[in-house]
Amino acid sequence: MPHQFGHVSGVKPGDTFPNRKALAAAGVHPPLQAGISGNAAEGADSIVVSGGYEDDEDLGDVIVYTGQGGQDPVTRKQVNDQELTRGNLALARSRSLGRPVRVTRGANHASPYSPRTGFRYDGLFRVEDAWTESGKSGYLVWRFRLMKLEELSDASHGSRKPAGRMNASVSRIIRDTEVSQRVKQIHDYRCQICGQRIETPDGPYAEGAHIRPLGRPHDGPDSLDNILCLCPNHHVMFDHGAFTIADDLTLVGIDGSLRVHKLHRISADSIRYHREHYGPG
Amino acid sequence: MPHQFGHVSGVKPGDTFPNRKALAAAGVHPPLQAGISGNAAEGADSIVVSGGYEDDEDLGDVIVYTGQGGQDPVTRKQVNDQELTRGNLALARSRSLGRPVRVTRGANHASPYSPRTGFRYDGLFRVEDAWTESGKSGYLVWRFRLMKLEELSDASHGSRKPAGRMNASVSRIIRDTEVSQRVKQIHDYRCQICGQRIETPDGPYAEGAHIRPLGRPHDGPDSLDNILCLCPNHHVMFDHGAFTIADDLTLVGIDGSLRVHKLHRISADSIRYHREHYGPG
Repeated sequence: MPHQFGHVSGVKPGDTFPNRKALAAAGVHPPLQAGISGNAAEGADSIVVSGGYEDDEDLGDVIVYTGQGGQDPVTRKQVNDQELTRGNLALARSRSLGRPVRVTRGANHASPYSPRTGFRYDGLFRVEDAWTESGKSGYLVWRFRLMKLEELSDASHGSRKPAGRMNASVSRIIRDTEVSQRVKQIHDYRCQICGQRIETPDGPYAEGAHIRPLGRPHDGPDSLDNILCLCPNHHVMFDHGAFTIADDLTLVGIDGSLRVHKLHRISADSIRYHREHYGPG
Repeated sequence: MPHQFGHVSGVKPGDTFPNRKALAAAGVHPPLQAGISGNAAEGADSIVVSGGYEDDEDLGDVIVYTGQGGQDPVTRKQVNDQELTRGNLALARSRSLGRPVRVTRGANHASPYSPRTGFRYDGLFRVEDAWTESGKSGYLVWRFRLMKLEELSDASHGSRKPAGRMNASVSRIIRDTEVSQRVKQIHDYRCQICGQRIETPDGPYAEGAHIRPLGRPHDGPDSLDNILCLCPNHHVMFDHGAFTIADDLTLVGIDGSLRVHKLHRISADSIRYHREHYGPG
């Protein structure tokens, strides 16, 4: 059976299931054991948050989910690094494809958002960030930040018809702050990677890219030395770890060096953070 | 006085003012007559929706705002085309810069969202679309779609601290649908403008760009023939009207032709819509 993305027929958010078999039979999460359903080509269609991994963090509308692999099959302790393969690759792919992921919570996960018993389907989320870190065990784990998708209504969508199943859409969000404006001005809207400046009828366009991301769990600062001026293409590549930056400001993963300006100092801590968490493996 | 962006000190959404003079004195909207405050370099810091233009549409969290100019000063009827200058250019610039715009509603505008008397400051919006159309009068008018910014909370932001004034951030949102996935597959993630394919650790990346936009008031279809596979740079340029597409699929505004694939027919209606509403003037 091909993977089905978005809501599945006959199941709505809040519906509960006594066990994994019932959850699979309903088509919500086909595999009986794995926490991630999906593949490298299509992305992940579904995950179960059920306490199998020590590092999951459930904040309700935001879930920081730990990837799979590296566990001892008996003790379920982390005994090896995780890799960007199988379910982890599927989840990373969902982010790049902009595809929604079904989220089901199980009672086994200690969180105020978990059901008391069994499993509860909690709707569609988008993968908005993927990175690696040294987990509680000391081994490398993959981490995915998922955010609940708003079911688009007339008001928020501005459309005349409510979004149906087939329209489930995922957004990539570029967040610009007032400090970003200053960084873009200093570089005259030229990308610090390729030097290109995108021209539009109202003037040049560039994006302010936070090196150490804003928001949980990275909590990077919204400061001049933590922001790069990038074209949209290099912004995507930077956020997805297609390249990172060495201490001498040469690029790692692609050729070249960061273009600099004397009014714009870059934080060594921030680029180290990016390299350690997003750098090409 | 330089333009101030974001909320102004001592004023919160919902605060009311008896007249434009009081609104200006509070720093919410400095000009006493013009509906748009701002300039071409910094963008627009504030607008007043007050019924001066026949074509404004107020949907609450979404406002379709008509640009300025082309009115007879006495009758206030539209007697000329509007141009991408002054306030219109400022609002278009706000979109490219990703800057928030203060919105104040006046009693003169006939809408359920208008105050009964005077003016009410209604918070920060982002400009998410800008285009031209033939107004009710038959003359060309500029139109801007503004969407209310969520004041980011802990839950939605995932940050440990609430977003303060200085952090007011604006997002550009890229919406991918299931039909977009098919278009991207057909083109093997190569941009239909430049042929480039962005590589990331989890695979190639491209964006599905709706030619006639989804959502009000364009109501473009989410169909294969209304979507292009673009790199992020050309997606921005296309959405901002830096180029459009002729009937013979040559590009207008930049050199070249649209790269096509036999499995992907392009709607002639959609490209005509884009040309008429977004094409470089």
